Amino acid sequence: MPPTIGVFDSGFGGLTVLRALIQRLPRARFAFIGDTARLPYGSKSRRTIARYAAESAQFLVRKQGAEFLVIACNTASALALDAIQVAVPDIPVLGVIEPGASAARAATRTGDVLVIATDATVQSHAYSAACRALGMRALEKACPLLVPLVEEGWTSHPVTAEVIRIYLDELNAEAKAQGLNPDTLVLGCTHYPLLRPLMQSIVPPGIRVIDSAEAAAEAAALLFNGPAQLPQDLAGTPETTVHCFATDSVEKFERLGSRFLGRPVGNVELVDLGG
Amino acid sequence: MPPTIGVFDSGFGGLTVLRALIQRLPRARFAFIGDTARLPYGSKSRRTIARYAAESAQFLVRKQGAEFLVIACNTASALALDAIQVAVPDIPVLGVIEPGASAARAATRTGDVLVIATDATVQSHAYSAACRALGMRALEKACPLLVPLVEEGWTSHPVTAEVIRIYLDELNAEAKAQGLNPDTLVLGCTHYPLLRPLMQSIVPPGIRVIDSAEAAAEAAALLFNGPAQLPQDLAGTPETTVHCFATDSVEKFERLGSRFLGRPVGNVELVDLGG
Repeated sequence: MPPTIGVFDSGFGGLTVLRALIQRLPRARFAFIGDTARLPYGSKSRRTIARYAAESAQFLVRKQGAEFLVIACNTASALALDAIQVAVPDIPVLGVIEPGASAARAATRTGDVLVIATDATVQSHAYSAACRALGMRALEKACPLLVPLVEEGWTSHPVTAEVIRIYLDELNAEAKAQGLNPDTLVLGCTHYPLLRPLMQSIVPPGIRVIDSAEAAAEAAALLFNGPAQLPQDLAGTPETTVHCFATDSVEKFERLGSRFLGRPVGNVELVDLGG
Repeated sequence: MPPTIGVFDSGFGGLTVLRALIQRLPRARFAFIGDTARLPYGSKSRRTIARYAAESAQFLVRKQGAEFLVIACNTASALALDAIQVAVPDIPVLGVIEPGASAARAATRTGDVLVIATDATVQSHAYSAACRALGMRALEKACPLLVPLVEEGWTSHPVTAEVIRIYLDELNAEAKAQGLNPDTLVLGCTHYPLLRPLMQSIVPPGIRVIDSAEAAAEAAALLFNGPAQLPQDLAGTPETTVHCFATDSVEKFERLGSRFLGRPVGNVELVDLGG
């Protein structure tokens, strides 16, 4: 029986993290829950987010037998990682923010990094804190139009390219004004990996783009497997077992999910975690 | 003591309806509640939306003394108007959809109208049904990028103009394919009034633009005042009393609210309606 890895998001953006996990751990069983009844977490208080996230974590561990948890949600990673760990005390829990900051640390030469994310993640300043802890300076910018543009399917649309250009121009101007010399851009939202090709065509050649979904999957694979086992796991690609759950209307999840997962999400099961 | 009109939305978009109401009923007292802890309603089931909306309606009537309710939320108007009326049996309750359809009926010559709205409102087909009941044919289109563009403050931005052009081109092509000859465009979302000047510069000159927020306020003023009293009320503009309430984080509400209301929203009071 292969081990079960639980993956949690407030919606379905975290499926990009699951996709990256499957590439690295194709023999694992995955249980993914999107707390769609209560999204978005971004506008809610820390206490409420912590309670919601703990309920999802307990569902994955107690009902789905997860032996390892990946919090594929920037807001929950920023505000509720401690509360989740308390809710499932014996289970290793990994968020997306520390791995994103670590990957930026490995990539940057100047020590100055740019972070784009949702409003809620930026307001938490979790990336700034994680980067500072690793000796970097980070400048964060909320890019609230990017999630709806991805959900509209405009991932290579001229309008999206223009919006990215506007956001990055503002961010670079602000970096210059603060005397920063950034050489790394962190994608701090689980929707943004779908914009990576477009993003890469827009950022100047000297800027490295770091995807926090990839970085979290990398960190999970290392923790889970140890580095030595990775090449073997990547060599074979047997049918990975993936079960997806949602707490409300699965329609949008099923419609958009396969685009995020890079393969069909299959039947999404409705679960009730209570009010 | 002037009468109190209760206005309800899942968020703060309904402040455009409140603004239109204040213009028509400047002597009334207004209590507005945005159920921000539980937004967006669009992804939730009808039963859940009905329960939430009923709780907000009861708060406005029992705690704020509202003698008249305006449901300034398209989703709640589409899915929960009956449940709200049951929850506050002796109070007149007005939604935004019937007034929007009536205003379209007064404007159209061809009887064919276009409706743009959020995904949830379009999926409910409430505008189609209301238009059909008045002898019109309606073609609805979800425009999910418009709300985030308004919230980003890009109400007269070239990107927004381009997005509107793309949506309207798709809608007109679909209308043509269905053999419709539309001469009226209904703005079926309380965020869209902020796009009206831009919208008006983009739609062909033969197309009338109907704002459901204005239409609802007009209908409320008629019901409340009778047509004869309107000119007097509009003549004077004394300080209208407005109290705003929200069920979670009031920060975004206070930051964006005044743009929607066209005047400062003042202190927004946090209320707890329960899980």
